[in-house]
Amino acid sequence: MSGNTFGHTFSVTTFGESHGPAIGCVIDGCPPGMALSEADIQPELDRRRPGTSRHVTQRQEPDRVEILSGVYEGKTTGTPIALLIRNEDQRSKDYGNIAATFRPGHADFAYWNKYGIRDPRGGGRSSARLTAPVVAAGAVAKKWLAERHGVSFSGWMSQLGEIAIPFVDATEIPNNAFFAPNAAVVPELEAYMDALRKAGDSCGARIEVVARGLPAGWGEPLFDKLDADIAFAMMGINAVKGVEIGDGFACVSQKGSEHGDEITPEGFLSNHAGGVLGGISTGQDLRVSLAIKPTSSIRVPRKSIDIHGEPTVVETHGRHDPCVGIRATPIAEAMLALVLIDHALRHRAQCGDVNVGR
Amino acid sequence: MSGNTFGHTFSVTTFGESHGPAIGCVIDGCPPGMALSEADIQPELDRRRPGTSRHVTQRQEPDRVEILSGVYEGKTTGTPIALLIRNEDQRSKDYGNIAATFRPGHADFAYWNKYGIRDPRGGGRSSARLTAPVVAAGAVAKKWLAERHGVSFSGWMSQLGEIAIPFVDATEIPNNAFFAPNAAVVPELEAYMDALRKAGDSCGARIEVVARGLPAGWGEPLFDKLDADIAFAMMGINAVKGVEIGDGFACVSQKGSEHGDEITPEGFLSNHAGGVLGGISTGQDLRVSLAIKPTSSIRVPRKSIDIHGEPTVVETHGRHDPCVGIRATPIAEAMLALVLIDHALRHRAQCGDVNVGR
Amino acid sequence: MSGNTFGHTFSVTTFGESHGPAIGCVIDGCPPGMALSEADIQPELDRRRPGTSRHVTQRQEPDRVEILSGVYEGKTTGTPIALLIRNEDQRSKDYGNIAATFRPGHADFAYWNKYGIRDPRGGGRSSARLTAPVVAAGAVAKKWLAERHGVSFSGWMSQLGEIAIPFVDATEIPNNAFFAPNAAVVPELEAYMDALRKAGDSCGARIEVVARGLPAGWGEPLFDKLDADIAFAMMGINAVKGVEIGDGFACVSQKGSEHGDEITPEGFLSNHAGGVLGGISTGQDLRVSLAIKPTSSIRVPRKSIDIHGEPTVVETHGRHDPCVGIRATPIAEAMLALVLIDHALRHRAQCGDVNVGR
Amino acid sequence: MSGNTFGHTFSVTTFGESHGPAIGCVIDGCPPGMALSEADIQPELDRRRPGTSRHVTQRQEPDRVEILSGVYEGKTTGTPIALLIRNEDQRSKDYGNIAATFRPGHADFAYWNKYGIRDPRGGGRSSARLTAPVVAAGAVAKKWLAERHGVSFSGWMSQLGEIAIPFVDATEIPNNAFFAPNAAVVPELEAYMDALRKAGDSCGARIEVVARGLPAGWGEPLFDKLDADIAFAMMGINAVKGVEIGDGFACVSQKGSEHGDEITPEGFLSNHAGGVLGGISTGQDLRVSLAIKPTSSIRVPRKSIDIHGEPTVVETHGRHDPCVGIRATPIAEAMLALVLIDHALRHRAQCGDVNVGR
Repeated sequence: MSGNTFGHTFSVTTFGESHGPAIGCVIDGCPPGMALSEADIQPELDRRRPGTSRHVTQRQEPDRVEILSGVYEGKTTGTPIALLIRNEDQRSKDYGNIAATFRPGHADFAYWNKYGIRDPRGGGRSSARLTAPVVAAGAVAKKWLAERHGVSFSGWMSQLGEIAIPFVDATEIPNNAFFAPNAAVVPELEAYMDALRKAGDSCGARIEVVARGLPAGWGEPLFDKLDADIAFAMMGINAVKGVEIGDGFACVSQKGSEHGDEITPEGFLSNHAGGVLGGISTGQDLRVSLAIKPTSSIRVPRKSIDIHGEPTVVETHGRHDPCVGIRATPIAEAMLALVLIDHALRHRAQCGDVNVGR
Repeated sequence: MSGNTFGHTFSVTTFGESHGPAIGCVIDGCPPGMALSEADIQPELDRRRPGTSRHVTQRQEPDRVEILSGVYEGKTTGTPIALLIRNEDQRSKDYGNIAATFRPGHADFAYWNKYGIRDPRGGGRSSARLTAPVVAAGAVAKKWLAERHGVSFSGWMSQLGEIAIPFVDATEIPNNAFFAPNAAVVPELEAYMDALRKAGDSCGARIEVVARGLPAGWGEPLFDKLDADIAFAMMGINAVKGVEIGDGFACVSQKGSEHGDEITPEGFLSNHAGGVLGGISTGQDLRVSLAIKPTSSIRVPRKSIDIHGEPTVVETHGRHDPCVGIRATPIAEAMLALVLIDHALRHRAQCGDVNVGR
Repeated sequence: MSGNTFGHTFSVTTFGESHGPAIGCVIDGCPPGMALSEADIQPELDRRRPGTSRHVTQRQEPDRVEILSGVYEGKTTGTPIALLIRNEDQRSKDYGNIAATFRPGHADFAYWNKYGIRDPRGGGRSSARLTAPVVAAGAVAKKWLAERHGVSFSGWMSQLGEIAIPFVDATEIPNNAFFAPNAAVVPELEAYMDALRKAGDSCGARIEVVARGLPAGWGEPLFDKLDADIAFAMMGINAVKGVEIGDGFACVSQKGSEHGDEITPEGFLSNHAGGVLGGISTGQDLRVSLAIKPTSSIRVPRKSIDIHGEPTVVETHGRHDPCVGIRATPIAEAMLALVLIDHALRHRAQCGDVNVGR
Repeated sequence: MSGNTFGHTFSVTTFGESHGPAIGCVIDGCPPGMALSEADIQPELDRRRPGTSRHVTQRQEPDRVEILSGVYEGKTTGTPIALLIRNEDQRSKDYGNIAATFRPGHADFAYWNKYGIRDPRGGGRSSARLTAPVVAAGAVAKKWLAERHGVSFSGWMSQLGEIAIPFVDATEIPNNAFFAPNAAVVPELEAYMDALRKAGDSCGARIEVVARGLPAGWGEPLFDKLDADIAFAMMGINAVKGVEIGDGFACVSQKGSEHGDEITPEGFLSNHAGGVLGGISTGQDLRVSLAIKPTSSIRVPRKSIDIHGEPTVVETHGRHDPCVGIRATPIAEAMLALVLIDHALRHRAQCGDVNVGR
């Protein structure tokens, strides 16, 4: 009801604020008997971690995860898995004037209007830092999906600000700070970010995520369609403003004779649908694309008001990501994994194990 | 869990198939004491109704709604409101060969794989006919939002296939079959549809929806953001493949200094955000855009398989919308209304009435 | 949220009022592929039907159920099953003065205070008539539980007012109006009810329900224990004021060495637990007992107030059950079936089909 | 779905095992702006704490609670409140043989059958230790209910094993280890427990809980009745086997003319209903009674089987409560508070703040 739980069967409840003592989550519904330790989760957290290049926030957080429950002798028991990450590099003094004014484009205005109170330190609850527990939970989901169904995930950046990033080679993705599947474009991306940082401004990005190997049959019509839940999950990531499944907005100018993926006994001949028909997976690759807006915390002066409604000018200093899209790839993969495990378990509630991917 | 209920506080559970005896829904959680009769609902159903122009399916359905419960002496009582619409123009014989084969791009393949059984008559549960109960429930939500909070809704088509429809005049929207805010473009749209129908093909469309007058403070972080729920709602409409909030995918190439809406004591100076920050409404207009794919039921022959996995060629005859986007505008408005009333009520659960739009 | 849906996986949303045009429910989550027709449901409705003896309300309702959706060619499709029952014997004039006053012990006072409006005709939404859709949904649940898991149900009355009904013979249960497992006591029960009716008064009853054949492993700790959900379900039946599982309140004075059911390779040696340990089924018979209060609609004059807060005296005439417990047995069985199917499906979501009753 | 979350609006998700590193919970939906610190919670935890008399388990746990999130400058912010309690006195070696055998009457048999794996140390997840986070969350709920609505709670033991405890004086409740409202009976209770402990056996108890000051109008018909949710909450407490509201099972032999509480302009003349009619609060005192079974971990030898199905004899040594009912009073109060705050917030979602207790 109050929005801090994701999922119906494999449900993840997160807690914490950017500058509080800790952040974390509780996973309820993880199937029992799966081997699990911190070592399964830490690598995903490390992919998302701040401070790893000059293009992201310089806050130093090891993001070390501790499993507090739900695992006995190295295996999940079916009981809640609590994951705890202590905050270690809070510098709340950096955020002094943020408490009294609203950054244009930032959640602080909306939180203030909703609750009449907000934790302004580092964005409080609305900070992108809160994607860390999501990534941790997503690592657990990914492991189960891989072991039980052979599902794999891949994500990359396809555009940074005005620079399109043509897909060349998936093996390049982990080799640069941008998750770019293209080594040649990296110097251009770096120069773009350096100029942006110098200007005290920020930019947007476009991220692609693909899941492969899932069976046909996951997804719950009418409302809880697989693609509807993916849209919900992606739009729920900080700064996301658009989501596409398959060909997305390009479908508008397609003809039916062009869009509908023909089927042969060997499989589909194309994938305009992006792996979902009628809200249910088809067994094709699941293709998702998302638009991320530029960060609102910038040094460029901007007109705003303070909490008393008086006009002011806001310049935001301190440590901020000039493009939150740079660290968004592992987050989008994690959210997709959370959607898929939730629907995998929902499916077998109604239809049984034996019918998965009949 | 099985996906046929929308909303947490004002929850709508729909039922029915395209060619079954009836379709309908049960609304649970409508506030008590609101005047309500069929006359409040029927006009919205009429906007969505089939058979009203040559550009949509020729199926003749009056879509007459009957209120079965929840209203006493013309007022809602707070108990469930059941709405019933009898199907009157089923012609199941039109759909004979559909039962044994899969239309490329249609949900029938996915339903078959999920459930091992499906009602093939007119698409069964996956038919766009099932948006009628949604529109009926949306009419109830709109009424409450208007009376209690002064919220109003507006929707239109901004692109049909390859034809962009520049916004000229909102008063033109009800004057043409396309919900086009532009009288001049209508002849071109009609010619386009006539040619398409002749070719036995289909096309996509782009729809815009706006809600005005809502207070700041609706929306539940972290996951159940207002925009996340809007994305969920819109992507759950048949044939939708993309959703944008505010500037959507255009944000990717915007700078932070361009995107963030500056604030003055008199209000926001722009609306790139589309009315949501951090998942919570800002009081700006709520702007949503959606991409609708071309219909899969076309006469153009397409390669497919039958239910035994054997190759076949599918040509779909019978009565179908050549562009489901044409009737999508009232559906998108209804879904937006359902999201808003749900969040209005969720907000006052946690924060109380007095804090709404403080 | 507003309380008219039961269950998480096999969820039943009911609607309707005692004197509205119709009552019914929508079942979402029924597994696909099960044979189902009205003939599977009607016999359970007939067990609960009013007007079948002089000891229950004389309202004449055939309670004929119509399946509106979710079944294709005689089989469930996995989509929502809507069940409709038209009200046929409303006599709203009988209830004239009920609208302006509150019956001591009746829900009308509470509804009025909650909603500020209520449908007073026949108790409106709070009428025991609304157990009919529950019984209909329970029939669907019973069928699946029997076919898939071999679970069977049995219920009977063990006390009527001051008269205890010793359990003698289960085959006698359908042979009398009271669901008494004891032919010898029936004349005494009849005389008791006749005297009560003559006095214009009412009485309570105690009902027992047992489910047999369920596997070990159903139930979700920590909060959604199987017995917690049973207590929820039973206390949700009109007029129920107490629920026991297994030995219930007798446990208070038992020793641990007496209560704990010893186990052998052949099974449990006793059943004090009533089939649940730690909130999870053990495979023992599930034993539930409930206390039903006397009906509040009686002819005996009672002090009360009217809707303006003025003192008045209330005598309730019209058609009422002098003991709602008489028709409660099939209702309690239905609720138990709804709990069990819900937990059966929840269990397989997390633990899979193969682990059910390992 | 997997049962570790309680409540819809004020939802509490607990995690942890008896001998894991920590236990705790996340509260989502707490209204913003309420003063809150650990000092508001610790006293309730201290009431429930083990090791405080010779009649309860001798495990030494300070049960010190840490607030990890959701509070800023001493006030709730509307975001999730995570509460952490480190386990400090685990002695897993005490529980060696418990891992391989099933205690008659204990959850370990059911967990094993459900999940195929279980954490046997101290009962793992099924331990009564997991009521500590519930009590902590209940303290937050109690505070809001007191400040916003003036609701107060009172609980006591009314029977210990075979010894009835007549209610004499509420001020005595905190003065003895049993929560007995009666100083005179305490020596008898102590002697009873000493004999029981010597015999290596255990006993049951009966607990009463009352909430005072709540308005009329809380509770959601049809299924989520206030009393149904209370029954759910109470039956979900470890070892509870029976729940009564108001007169409970005594209603069975009452007449309607005796049971229905007469109303005057000054209020109700009696309280047989226990504060609920039709599932909605009446403004009367809310009266709840529960039956707690004897602990299953006893030294008396009992027949059982091991995890391979072979017969064995079980004697349970180590540190255990000989009567879990002794510490149940604050737990039952906490669960009642969680039900009430949940319904208070649910009520204002649908009916608004202004209508609470009209």
